[in-house]
Amino acid sequence: MKEIPYKIYLEESELPKQWYNVRADMKNKPAPLLNPATLKPMGFEDLRPVFCDELIKQELDDTTPYFDIPEEILNFYKMYRPAPLVRAYFLEKALDTPAKIYYKFEGNNTSGSHKLNSAIAQAYYAKKQGLKGVTTETGAGQWGTALSMACSYFGLDCEVYMVKVSYEQKPFRREVMKTYGASVTPSPSDKTAVGRKILKEYPGTSGSLGCAISEAVEAATSKEGYRYVLGSVLSQVLLHQTVIGLEAKTALDKYHIKPDIIIGCAGGGSNLGGLISPFVGEKLRGEADYRIIAVEPASCPSLTRGKYVYDFCDTGMVCPLAKMYTLGNGFIPSANHAGGLRYHGMSSILSQLYEDKLIEAVSVEQTQVFDAAVQFARVEGTLPAPESSHAIRIAIDEALRCKETGEEKTIVFGLTGTGYFDMVAYEKYNSGNMSDYIPTDEDLAKGFATIPQL
Amino acid sequence: MKEIPYKIYLEESELPKQWYNVRADMKNKPAPLLNPATLKPMGFEDLRPVFCDELIKQELDDTTPYFDIPEEILNFYKMYRPAPLVRAYFLEKALDTPAKIYYKFEGNNTSGSHKLNSAIAQAYYAKKQGLKGVTTETGAGQWGTALSMACSYFGLDCEVYMVKVSYEQKPFRREVMKTYGASVTPSPSDKTAVGRKILKEYPGTSGSLGCAISEAVEAATSKEGYRYVLGSVLSQVLLHQTVIGLEAKTALDKYHIKPDIIIGCAGGGSNLGGLISPFVGEKLRGEADYRIIAVEPASCPSLTRGKYVYDFCDTGMVCPLAKMYTLGNGFIPSANHAGGLRYHGMSSILSQLYEDKLIEAVSVEQTQVFDAAVQFARVEGTLPAPESSHAIRIAIDEALRCKETGEEKTIVFGLTGTGYFDMVAYEKYNSGNMSDYIPTDEDLAKGFATIPQL
Repeated sequence: MKEIPYKIYLEESELPKQWYNVRADMKNKPAPLLNPATLKPMGFEDLRPVFCDELIKQELDDTTPYFDIPEEILNFYKMYRPAPLVRAYFLEKALDTPAKIYYKFEGNNTSGSHKLNSAIAQAYYAKKQGLKGVTTETGAGQWGTALSMACSYFGLDCEVYMVKVSYEQKPFRREVMKTYGASVTPSPSDKTAVGRKILKEYPGTSGSLGCAISEAVEAATSKEGYRYVLGSVLSQVLLHQTVIGLEAKTALDKYHIKPDIIIGCAGGGSNLGGLISPFVGEKLRGEADYRIIAVEPASCPSLTRGKYVYDFCDTGMVCPLAKMYTLGNGFIPSANHAGGLRYHGMSSILSQLYEDKLIEAVSVEQTQVFDAAVQFARVEGTLPAPESSHAIRIAIDEALRCKETGEEKTIVFGLTGTGYFDMVAYEKYNSGNMSDYIPTDEDLAKGFATIPQL
Repeated sequence: MKEIPYKIYLEESELPKQWYNVRADMKNKPAPLLNPATLKPMGFEDLRPVFCDELIKQELDDTTPYFDIPEEILNFYKMYRPAPLVRAYFLEKALDTPAKIYYKFEGNNTSGSHKLNSAIAQAYYAKKQGLKGVTTETGAGQWGTALSMACSYFGLDCEVYMVKVSYEQKPFRREVMKTYGASVTPSPSDKTAVGRKILKEYPGTSGSLGCAISEAVEAATSKEGYRYVLGSVLSQVLLHQTVIGLEAKTALDKYHIKPDIIIGCAGGGSNLGGLISPFVGEKLRGEADYRIIAVEPASCPSLTRGKYVYDFCDTGMVCPLAKMYTLGNGFIPSANHAGGLRYHGMSSILSQLYEDKLIEAVSVEQTQVFDAAVQFARVEGTLPAPESSHAIRIAIDEALRCKETGEEKTIVFGLTGTGYFDMVAYEKYNSGNMSDYIPTDEDLAKGFATIPQL
């Protein structure tokens, strides 16, 4: 058997040429999006004012198992892919565990995360449709940066509504976006009607992804030649992100490695969905079995403490309704440093998989997450993003469990990005000023009260 | 012939196992370091109070062509190497040039640059000698970060004196260093006698690498179990950095690519020296010919406007004298955003190669550098460090020259790092507030006046 290198980089010829649509293999399909006005499933024409045509087709298609990746996107992928599958030899040694730990590292690009995988796809289809530009929201700033890069590449205008807490905590993120030619507005803002309404209702709010989505959708639909694009949650985004899982699987297969546990952080679900899709596909087809764990912050626990119901995708209640695990569209999570994991809901694909017990979920507190982040940084060299560090925390916990039991399990986790723009959070942790926020049942009840009664 | 991929990643088995000492092939050897007290060449015993024993041996050895890389260092290299050799297809297309452009990218690690290549070597030898810790200076913060990572890996104490202008411009850099357990002091500081003296002479100074070196040396020699380590200039550092050039050459040879022009930015010379050593070796042995270009900032033009004489390596005049191109140890460069290129002198190896016309040098102004940086970021995806962008500027200029002449030259440049911690500089550029600083002849005369008359 070939010796397993520290980093497995696939050859260009081994890179995926198609995205995999896990819905095609799901017996229980994710529930359709509903039109908020009619409460009927949304069709192609309903979605056209908001989304690009080709992306709507991908969104609605739950039967086609594979979609060809267009040549232009394959080319762009070569700019920063293949992303390595790294054997965490150093971490294993530090933990003194018999477990074998691998991580798929998506941070080797300027956006600092996996978000670029879908950003370039969405920008491509917008360009192909002859649009002038796109609008979007961003939490931690990774999606906004990724979209700025993608739009710059295709010469598209890019308007970003950035969750206010991240806008303030990550001043340098907005400068990266500007370097790539994007405009960046802290959300909620007074630039949109929905922003003004939210500001009036919740003065001094630090914002949320839900608010920012409402603003970006309004901005897109109120002028000619623009569409809205979203960096997570949607099924189209999970589709694009399967490039992560497909590459990971090819790399594992190449070295005859069979994972026992697959772990990913979950905010809206794009990284986790992308990573696990090909593995879930095998489970669904009865070809293999894996433990799959979604890790979410204790401060925004949509899977572990949410309800599986129809809810609005945004706080402003202008977007379609999705059936998903949700804390309520009005849930505003307490401030934490994983801005990318502050969404009130969860991808409808992942929600259905969780409901069907094909995946598990756990929640973790942020100080424990940063303990893991710093331990990882010191031995593996890469300073991880707070979001990614949720997965690291559970990977370490599982590896330590193996140490107790003596089991040589193989653990694969998604290291979605780097924390170079998260030094405010690290400073807080380093200086001992970081605390944990867990919503009380009362807090949750307030959020649940905002879920529409259909 | 094999198609050339966007990124050439060597296999682990192809990675260099030895560093290459270019001095062994130089007919005119770099002049020896002189003891500032006796003006005699410094021997092993003279250097022992300041440097680690094994590193002194490497520093003084100008005849051994290859040094085995210790196993522990080879292992650590696997954490973040191989660094890819990237074909800049996107940049070529944007420039519409017949030139073929490649860059060796050293930024895929948390220190964000090539500095880690020598940091880990120096930390290893310090540990092997049973020391408690090391002290150092850092300009842009990349070296300090790299050393923090390396010291954390070996459990060594790490004290960093950071040039004040960088300390202020890059607050997040110090947080990265702290995350890796280092202590960071802005220089000049009142913690050392030499710092207090400099502060008194130049109140309000934004500092320089020369000052910070003096402070770090004093800190190392004034307590038990510490030694000083340096991230550039020294021949030992260039030796470690040859891993860049050796990997680049292996990758080029693998695809039968022969460069015409090799370009690197030059501050103290570690990146450039590391990149070009194997190629200069071929020139020296008459096996091949290349144009080699050192690029320095117009604000600190040691090669293009300096003198080739003996000078102190530090502003405090406590370090040995080196024969090098220098602007004078008292030269304080005007503020610019390439903190890593603000050193008054230049590696004695590179100085001798330049004197012998084996390499060329040019200087560039920082607004032009940032023009190139942003152009590169937008098409190649990676947001480059200001330092590295000096090389990009000249690579683009040479490629545009090829466009005029129709020549299909092959250009290789060193992309030493990423600019994720340089967003203050990008903000200045994006907002149109960046200006250029070129020292007048009078400014230079003031610096030259600080060169000792031997």
